[in-house]
Amino acid sequence: METLGLELGYALDTFYFLVCAALVMWMAAGFAMLEAGLVRGKNTVEILNKNALLYGVACVAYLVVGYNIMYPGDPVNSVIPGLDFLLGPDNATDDVVAGGEGAPYYSSMSDFMFQVVFAAATMSIVSGAVAERMRLWPFLVFAVVMVSVIYPVEGYWKWGGGFLDQLGFQDFAGSVVVHMAGASAALAAVILVGPRKGKFGPNGEVYAIPGANLPMATLGMFILWMGWFGFNGGSELKIANVEEANAVAKVFVNTNAAAAGGMIVAALIARLRFGKTDLTMTINGALAGLVAITAEPLLPSAGAATLIGAVGGAVVVFSVLLLDRLRLDDPVGAISVHGAAGIWGIFAVLFTNPAATFTGQLIGTVVTFAWMFLASFIVLYVIKKTIGLRVSDEEEHSGMDVFECGMAAYPEFMVTSLSDLGSPSSGKAVKASAQNAQGHLAASGNPISS
Amino acid sequence: METLGLELGYALDTFYFLVCAALVMWMAAGFAMLEAGLVRGKNTVEILNKNALLYGVACVAYLVVGYNIMYPGDPVNSVIPGLDFLLGPDNATDDVVAGGEGAPYYSSMSDFMFQVVFAAATMSIVSGAVAERMRLWPFLVFAVVMVSVIYPVEGYWKWGGGFLDQLGFQDFAGSVVVHMAGASAALAAVILVGPRKGKFGPNGEVYAIPGANLPMATLGMFILWMGWFGFNGGSELKIANVEEANAVAKVFVNTNAAAAGGMIVAALIARLRFGKTDLTMTINGALAGLVAITAEPLLPSAGAATLIGAVGGAVVVFSVLLLDRLRLDDPVGAISVHGAAGIWGIFAVLFTNPAATFTGQLIGTVVTFAWMFLASFIVLYVIKKTIGLRVSDEEEHSGMDVFECGMAAYPEFMVTSLSDLGSPSSGKAVKASAQNAQGHLAASGNPISS
Amino acid sequence: METLGLELGYALDTFYFLVCAALVMWMAAGFAMLEAGLVRGKNTVEILNKNALLYGVACVAYLVVGYNIMYPGDPVNSVIPGLDFLLGPDNATDDVVAGGEGAPYYSSMSDFMFQVVFAAATMSIVSGAVAERMRLWPFLVFAVVMVSVIYPVEGYWKWGGGFLDQLGFQDFAGSVVVHMAGASAALAAVILVGPRKGKFGPNGEVYAIPGANLPMATLGMFILWMGWFGFNGGSELKIANVEEANAVAKVFVNTNAAAAGGMIVAALIARLRFGKTDLTMTINGALAGLVAITAEPLLPSAGAATLIGAVGGAVVVFSVLLLDRLRLDDPVGAISVHGAAGIWGIFAVLFTNPAATFTGQLIGTVVTFAWMFLASFIVLYVIKKTIGLRVSDEEEHSGMDVFECGMAAYPEFMVTSLSDLGSPSSGKAVKASAQNAQGHLAASGNPISS
Repeated sequence: METLGLELGYALDTFYFLVCAALVMWMAAGFAMLEAGLVRGKNTVEILNKNALLYGVACVAYLVVGYNIMYPGDPVNSVIPGLDFLLGPDNATDDVVAGGEGAPYYSSMSDFMFQVVFAAATMSIVSGAVAERMRLWPFLVFAVVMVSVIYPVEGYWKWGGGFLDQLGFQDFAGSVVVHMAGASAALAAVILVGPRKGKFGPNGEVYAIPGANLPMATLGMFILWMGWFGFNGGSELKIANVEEANAVAKVFVNTNAAAAGGMIVAALIARLRFGKTDLTMTINGALAGLVAITAEPLLPSAGAATLIGAVGGAVVVFSVLLLDRLRLDDPVGAISVHGAAGIWGIFAVLFTNPAATFTGQLIGTVVTFAWMFLASFIVLYVIKKTIGLRVSDEEEHSGMDVFECGMAAYPEFMVTSLSDLGSPSSGKAVKASAQNAQGHLAASGNPISS
Repeated sequence: METLGLELGYALDTFYFLVCAALVMWMAAGFAMLEAGLVRGKNTVEILNKNALLYGVACVAYLVVGYNIMYPGDPVNSVIPGLDFLLGPDNATDDVVAGGEGAPYYSSMSDFMFQVVFAAATMSIVSGAVAERMRLWPFLVFAVVMVSVIYPVEGYWKWGGGFLDQLGFQDFAGSVVVHMAGASAALAAVILVGPRKGKFGPNGEVYAIPGANLPMATLGMFILWMGWFGFNGGSELKIANVEEANAVAKVFVNTNAAAAGGMIVAALIARLRFGKTDLTMTINGALAGLVAITAEPLLPSAGAATLIGAVGGAVVVFSVLLLDRLRLDDPVGAISVHGAAGIWGIFAVLFTNPAATFTGQLIGTVVTFAWMFLASFIVLYVIKKTIGLRVSDEEEHSGMDVFECGMAAYPEFMVTSLSDLGSPSSGKAVKASAQNAQGHLAASGNPISS
Repeated sequence: METLGLELGYALDTFYFLVCAALVMWMAAGFAMLEAGLVRGKNTVEILNKNALLYGVACVAYLVVGYNIMYPGDPVNSVIPGLDFLLGPDNATDDVVAGGEGAPYYSSMSDFMFQVVFAAATMSIVSGAVAERMRLWPFLVFAVVMVSVIYPVEGYWKWGGGFLDQLGFQDFAGSVVVHMAGASAALAAVILVGPRKGKFGPNGEVYAIPGANLPMATLGMFILWMGWFGFNGGSELKIANVEEANAVAKVFVNTNAAAAGGMIVAALIARLRFGKTDLTMTINGALAGLVAITAEPLLPSAGAATLIGAVGGAVVVFSVLLLDRLRLDDPVGAISVHGAAGIWGIFAVLFTNPAATFTGQLIGTVVTFAWMFLASFIVLYVIKKTIGLRVSDEEEHSGMDVFECGMAAYPEFMVTSLSDLGSPSSGKAVKASAQNAQGHLAASGNPISS
């Protein structure tokens, strides 16, 4: 019966891990909907393609290379890193049944499943920031390098037992390790790819470029919120005893509370400052609250978690305004949500976790930012100088969907997206769009003869 | 090993509770999509803001005040109700390990998590009924009072061990305690805020005002259906032994069966009566089936559950027609779905639960209605006389999104929403909308100078 | 304590089964969004109605008849098949506590819940293939027969212990039993109902008919991907010991890996062959990868699973082109995704499962196809000759939504869908649509007088 109990605990922990992983995988849909809702209709198919394909690319890259860099251990005994794992050794079940010291308490496959969706989430942060002008396949090339090497190296430093972990850097589920890390890569990309045409005027004007489908963006927020229960809740790694179960429950409550706090404060600030309750601020406030609590969702009381999220909601509003001032064009606010709120979150750990030190949090943040930004910058710079990062002016003007994907996201609805640009070439572009959308399978040549 | 078994049971029950809570949280997205799909495009951003922010407000209000009113107990030993809980006492783990009488079988935090999403769901019912004309922030003020006091008091009467519980009132997961309660508050709001312009003609005509995005509304139905597995399934409160596991499984099957029954019957009636298979009836029929089974999803056979749902589907069609006749304007049918079907559900308990009495069910329903309607009416009346409930005629005409939120939900798609109104001011409104949407960040003044 | 352990295992397995069932139920939403996004705006309400109602019809039909045909056993002791189960015998708890040979390890209700959503998924495959021209209620009549008899008979042959199972046919979660089976019925329907007007030209031309809402279709893909964790993960049937937990975890990893592989390869082929990264290929590639791994998601390594999915992604692209060449009109690619990739998946089992034989897989595939195609063809033929399968030319031209459902999916957005058809009757149709949408409740006669 001792064995039965150990087996049940192992099974419960594995199942908990898998459910949390499925919720984090679901966040890929959240990012996709959020970004698809916040870009213009003419660039929507492309951003959907980016979000879907980056997830796929991340899964393969992390399986083949990334996981073994981030969590070096038994699986890396082969010459090519990852090959052992790729070819699939089974879990060591004997250890569990014996119940000895060091016996695993969940399936190693469930751990991989949980980790791979984190890697994909890190990459998802980048896609929104470079939306509407960075080309699809160069973006995917960057995704391969990012998820194979750049993110895993940094992840190893903290979660793989590397020097940041030994230094006492505290980051429960990744305010910095995932979110600010993704935002740092996004910042490098935004600098290299430049702002969208029409975002900034010659005399310093900032123009809002409204998203085409705000219900979709709101759905994205709700999906991300739900998925975050898995993201933070699963990061406890274990649930099968009273103490761990209480911890996971606390993490759920605090994650939810922080999102609520961030959303309300961001909406209030928007209402007071702009006179309007800007829905994109409501959305980004909730996400900022979630990012902020991610560094320490366990130790704060529910009231404190609400406050930590609330400050995150304030941070995001001012960060969005600051980035505009700096002429950094981030169409969905990804750098503000994941970067600025992530930094706030990592230092908020100091209020509740006695193991955290200011120095430790600072070093962790600076080192992570420096690595992610510089490594990404170098890789993206090489891509820029070889295959190129950005679409042509004509493609940007007419929309990426026609040129990159040969189809329109909303072929029957779009009336203003192209003609609004007020250019004489708009009419032609509309026509091209319609033709392409009608004939995307025929794009390989003439209609297929039977 | 005895301890290991107790701990595993505690952990499994906690995890089950958290998974169910995440599913109920997901219902917030369901309400948001349902309502965003069923309103006109010019009022979509506002209803999305309402749905998102009411959820956030509910989380904070229930944490600070509501939970302790609804479930008074140890946490209320402090002077200000809720403060103890807000500041986060941990769970008493000793009790569990001892396994004695009264030992908790799940984390108290998981219980809070499950309860807070119920409170939010109750409030979500209201937002749909007052869509397209009740102002955002007055609505949120009402949400604070509703979730802090009005709902918790009524919830305490039944689920907190109050007088309705002692009277033998039977309501498993809240056909009345949540759904009809929300509908009662919605009815008070609908009466006070009045119908939308153009809904009812001077000679008693009833005009349908079609929703802008029916795929979104259908998605909302599916989300709610999925979330209801958590809503009803979690209300068994425990799963970690054979009897409880069987019960939860039965609840899942019956919940699903009732939704199926309600959907089919509502669609059939619409087809037979109107000659068309009205999708909004299909949607509301499924939801009515879900509401109807909520009062007793455990004891009926799967066949009986299908029938209970089916009657709910019939009830909702006729209730929608009746409310139109009474000139009560409920854009999404919330009062019919949650109120009328909820009342049917509470009396359907009499067929299968021998502990239920007609008198008990009647008193529970009447008392709950009276409290929820009157308390809501009074609070809303005060709001109406102070800060006001309803947008101005001009705002309603041009759409709430421009005036309240400074942006358009579908800035590139909308062609008919405003011009269809056939008013000479439409052109101006479209222009205002476009300007606002383009410049929502600039709303605080001039474009930001770098 | 022995009993406690057995009870906990039973409870964990039941909970796992229910969570997986909820995920598979969620796939109904995935199919609905996928199909709603890939059809034209004028046929969107109808396809939403089909997807919602087929799920409801499937739940009732499988409860009353189908389940007992597929899994004959104790419940079929009554005269009318299914009546015992319909009326709800409880689970035999005594067996569990005794823990003897043959004791059930999960609630029979959780098994029903899992099976009923599989039945609905099989039917969901059909709706996409006949979209935009098959009438709603004849489709639902077919759904009744399909889920009551046609699918359960075939399901019994493999999963109910019938002759295909005894023959050694290997199909873990249903590449053939569910997916190719659904595609076979879809093929029969596509042949009988014929292609959409305008799909194929008189000289063998093939015209793409673009979907109205690609973000919705992409959301559908993500929902299906998430739901597939339940579909394949739940098909292990048990998780409550180390070996089973490891198996379920492996299934999750492989399911995810195969989807990633399929998506990337389909997108790459589209890019290389058409010059454009066709989003519908990205979507269908992921789904094909999922279908392909479904026959054996346990035994391959994660690397092999990626490759199996990748081949599935290639298969679907060429199958879509082939069907066009054969003048078989499948608006969403359902036959290619579920049929072609399903066949690839069933033979890919031979690489990793030593219990599988080429003969066994071949016989299973041919027999399943023959039964599903012929039985469906006969039933659909009878429906065609009696109540009819297809809408009239006028209805197809103006859109099914107006005629079948009396409402428009996007009443405020649609500008090009009808006028694009370039017919003089378009203007009239738009007007009719608007009138119907405005007055769908008034369709039963005059406006309701108060």
